[in-house]
Order: sequence, then structure tokens, then C-alpha cells
Amino acid sequence: MPLKVLYSANPDQFTEYRMAVNSGLNAHNIKADISQNIPPHEVDYIFYAPSSALQDFGPYKNCKAVMSLWAGVERVVSNKTLTQPLTRMVDPGMTLGMVNWVTGHCLRHLLGMDKMIHNPTREWDDRAPPLSSDTRVTVLGLGALGSACATALADLGFIVSGWSRSPKSIENVTCHTGADGLRQSLQTANMVVLLLPDTPSTHNILNNETISQLPKGAIILNPGRGPLINDDDLLSALQTGQISAATLDVFRTEPLPDNHPFWKFPNVTVTPHVASATRISTASQILIENIVRSETGLPLLHMVDRKRGY
Amino acid sequence: MPLKVLYSANPDQFTEYRMAVNSGLNAHNIKADISQNIPPHEVDYIFYAPSSALQDFGPYKNCKAVMSLWAGVERVVSNKTLTQPLTRMVDPGMTLGMVNWVTGHCLRHLLGMDKMIHNPTREWDDRAPPLSSDTRVTVLGLGALGSACATALADLGFIVSGWSRSPKSIENVTCHTGADGLRQSLQTANMVVLLLPDTPSTHNILNNETISQLPKGAIILNPGRGPLINDDDLLSALQTGQISAATLDVFRTEPLPDNHPFWKFPNVTVTPHVASATRISTASQILIENIVRSETGLPLLHMVDRKRGY
Repeated sequence: MPLKVLYSANPDQFTEYRMAVNSGLNAHNIKADISQNIPPHEVDYIFYAPSSALQDFGPYKNCKAVMSLWAGVERVVSNKTLTQPLTRMVDPGMTLGMVNWVTGHCLRHLLGMDKMIHNPTREWDDRAPPLSSDTRVTVLGLGALGSACATALADLGFIVSGWSRSPKSIENVTCHTGADGLRQSLQTANMVVLLLPDTPSTHNILNNETISQLPKGAIILNPGRGPLINDDDLLSALQTGQISAATLDVFRTEPLPDNHPFWKFPNVTVTPHVASATRISTASQILIENIVRSETGLPLLHMVDRKRGY
Repeated sequence: MPLKVLYSANPDQFTEYRMAVNSGLNAHNIKADISQNIPPHEVDYIFYAPSSALQDFGPYKNCKAVMSLWAGVERVVSNKTLTQPLTRMVDPGMTLGMVNWVTGHCLRHLLGMDKMIHNPTREWDDRAPPLSSDTRVTVLGLGALGSACATALADLGFIVSGWSRSPKSIENVTCHTGADGLRQSLQTANMVVLLLPDTPSTHNILNNETISQLPKGAIILNPGRGPLINDDDLLSALQTGQISAATLDVFRTEPLPDNHPFWKFPNVTVTPHVASATRISTASQILIENIVRSETGLPLLHMVDRKRGY
């Protein structure tokens, strides 16, 4: 009998996910009915976007796992009806996309591209920009995305530090942990990349106090989660010049409202939550692998630790 | 007796070069007088910018080597008075700066950054950009700069091809040579990076014929040399959309004249010859090493082959 897989996520991507996952499962001789509408007690697996209407997991009594299509699971992790195993998406396409975004925007700021891209006065200022090897980048959060970005930045010659809750060891990256480590990793950073998960302990981690620990003129990049930043504190620091520029991909409200001050600052760049987009072709491989693992009694990949929240 | 080193290059950089080279030579117990004014027959070495007033090398009868501070030596290589050994600058700082520029602008085009950097209508278009792993970059020229850029692009996930006069082998880069190889390396390229030397055989290598071999909408990046591009042919291709964007760092006349059409195209970005800037701190190390080699009878690094022209 085919597996019953409920798709409870963006309807626009349903057909592409269904075809990709079915094709991959067929290669493992597993048949699946992937549908947007299945009686709850029949459901074996759920492909889930935390934004979807499904919020009561109680009726899904035979469901073997809920597989989030998102990397960030903060909206669902505290849902008390969700007692099934929960996995988050760690998509190689998403990781590469994040590395593309982080390295691209760090290089953009390094090279001072903006004044050349939009140069109505035809200014020709041929002073050489600094080198990556003279520039310190600190990555806050060294999970799958953060560590991939830290490594790519180090490969490009940047001097890279990282900070994470649990101690890490990454080649060519100076890794810090704890409150002292956070201060140390900030105090020489020319650029800070926020890639922490969204948990109560990371909320507003970029605030007046941590901003004041940075050297004057530091640049903030946030492709992680909106609530990592205290928006008012960042706006003040942009006004004083303590922060010279910010490139932000995530916000407390998305799309960023038209009247939000971030739109008005010439040294703030808003990118529309594109850094961590899941790519269906690569994300499907993770879903396929986890169904195969589950059906053959192997542990699931990328299980969410409910206590830590990610 | 101290060596006599004539500095014939940008006067603004004289003091910095003099101090850096003297300090490095001192560590080798070599004393040098580095000056902008020395009787020609006394000169042991010349630090040379091809733009400088010195064009007659005949009187420098005891000069052991002319060391160009520039990577590009096309202005000086055909100078018949220059019979002394000629070296070009292969500066690790310049190489890293070039890798910063090339990877930065390739990522910028990949991510479609421009419309987010300058977004007066506050548009929020959250369609995911393509991945580097879906994007083909061809690097024309696989010398020190081209091969470093090709490798860095491959490390960032791009699908990289390269083309050079003499056959090369570079890990993760598909290397081509010859006329057929040029066509092959162009026909699937989403982006083309021009890093060839400026020689009679590379003049106008980007022209109507080679542009027509590219897929429609390809992007041109020229951090190499201005004459590699037939400007009129590029302008036509920008008008038809055969080329969707160009980012140009070098031009036949620099600074790029105010009335040049490149300034007027919204899909052309002019960067002010900053991609290949020599960095004094790292370039000085090359000068020091070559003087030490010369004084101890070792062959000079980065000798120019007058016949090839680079």
C-alpha cells in the first residue's frame, strides 16, 4: 500500500515537490500518495511549512514524522499538539544560496560597490578598496548555515571569527562561545553576520550593548531571523554612525511594511527574504532520504531538539 | 656601497615604497638608496610604472633589471631602448584584490543585487535567485590572476570554464585553448570574465562574432584590459539584449570620459580601475625578493617574455 504523505505548505510548490519526491522514492521502490488532502488518521508523513493552516497535530495519530520544509522551526517547536518526531530542513541548495548571499554581500561592502552601481555624477575614485585579508568578519551562529558561510568567507581571505552556543571547531575560523566570547568576537569585527536560530535566548542579541562593543563603523548583515535585532537600537546606531551600513534579509514583519524606517535609510539595504530560500530540487532529496531512513528503521536526519528549540 | 634604485612611478606612493623596500632589504643586510633622481649610469635597478616619463632606457647602462610595478606591461614591452631584464608585478595583494572584485561582481549579478541596493519603489520580490551551482562562468585568460579567479569561483559553486593561449590544467575548471576552445567556452557562458593580457592577438577579442556565440542575456565582466573589448560591438549587444549587463573596470581611455556611452547604460557598471590595484605592502615583498635574487645570482621572478608580450 502506498505511503500517505500530507503536503501542508505553499500550494504553488505542491506539484514540483510531489513530482520530485515521488520520482526519488520510486528509485527506492517506495510508492507514495502525496496530497494536500488526506484524512488525518491515514497520514504517514507530513511535509510542513510552519506558516500553513495546519496547527493541530492531535488527529494525526499514525504520523511517523513531521518534516518541516523550513530551516527555522520557531513557530512550530512550542506547539504542544505536535508529539510526532519533527525534522527541520537542512537543504544543500539553501546552504549554497546562503553562502552566495553572505559572501556576495560581504564582498559588496568590502568593495564599496554601491557608489559605483548607482553613480549619477559619474565619479571616478580610483583609490583601491581594502583587501578581504585586512577585513574581519564575525559570524554569530555556527550551525549548518553559519559554519558553511564562515568557511567560505575564510576561503575568500577574510579574517573570520564565529560565535555559537556550544563550542565549535572550524578550520581557519576563530570560534568563541559564552558571554565573554560574544564580546571578544564583536570587538574587532568590521562586519557581523547574524545566523543564529530564533530562540528566547537569541532575541534582540543585537542591541545597544552588543552594538557598542563593535568598532565604530561596523556593518551588519542579517540573513538569519528578524527578531535577532532590536530594530530601534540598530536605527539609533545607524544614525550615530556606530553602524555604517546594514543589509537585512529578514524582518519581524514580512514583507517589510512600506512605512518602516529601514526603507528610508540610504545605508540600509533590504533584501526580500531570499537568502535562505529552500530549493525544491535539493530539498526533495532530504525528504526522500528521511522517508527512506524512517521506512528502513534508521534515525531521521535533522531532528529538532524541542528543548533547545531548533 | 648601497645599491642605487631609481623610482620612476607614482610620486604619491614613493615614500611608502621606499620605506617598505628598505626595511625588507635591511633584513637581508642589503643597503639601498631608493630615489626619484639618480644619474642614469649609477642606477642598479629601476622600479617602473609604464605611465612614467622615463621612456629611454639607453643611458641606464649598468641597470641590472627594470621592475614594473604594474601587472600589465604592454606599454613598455615594445620599447626598443629597454634591453635590460624586465619583470612584471605579480603581487599577492593584487591577486587577492582581483579575486575579491571578480567573485564579488559575479555574486552581485547572480543575486540580482542592484535592484535591492537602489529600490526607490520599495519593491519586495521574494523569488529565489539562481544558485551559483546553476550558473556558468567562463574566464578568458588563465594566468596568475585568471587562474586564481577561476579557482575561487569554482570554490563558490559556480560551473567554471577557462580559456588560455597555452593549455592549462586547473582543478574544477574546464580548460580550453585554441579557436574552437574559445567558441566552446563561450557558448554556454552566463557570465564572461576577461583577464587576458593586452597583446595584438587579444585586441577586440570580445566583438560581434564572439558576442554572438554567447547565450542571449550573458553578462560581461572586464577587470583585465580595455582594448580586449570592441566598445561599439558591446554597446550594440547591450542594446539588443544579447548582453544583459556589463561591469567594466578598464577602458581604452581612463578615467572614462564623461560623455562615453558606457556611463549612460543603466545595465553597465563602471568601476574606476580598482580591480587590479597593486598593494604596496605586498608588492614591496616581490621587489625585495627579486633584488635579493639578483644580488645572489638567482633568476628573477616574473620575467617578461618580450615575444609573447607579457
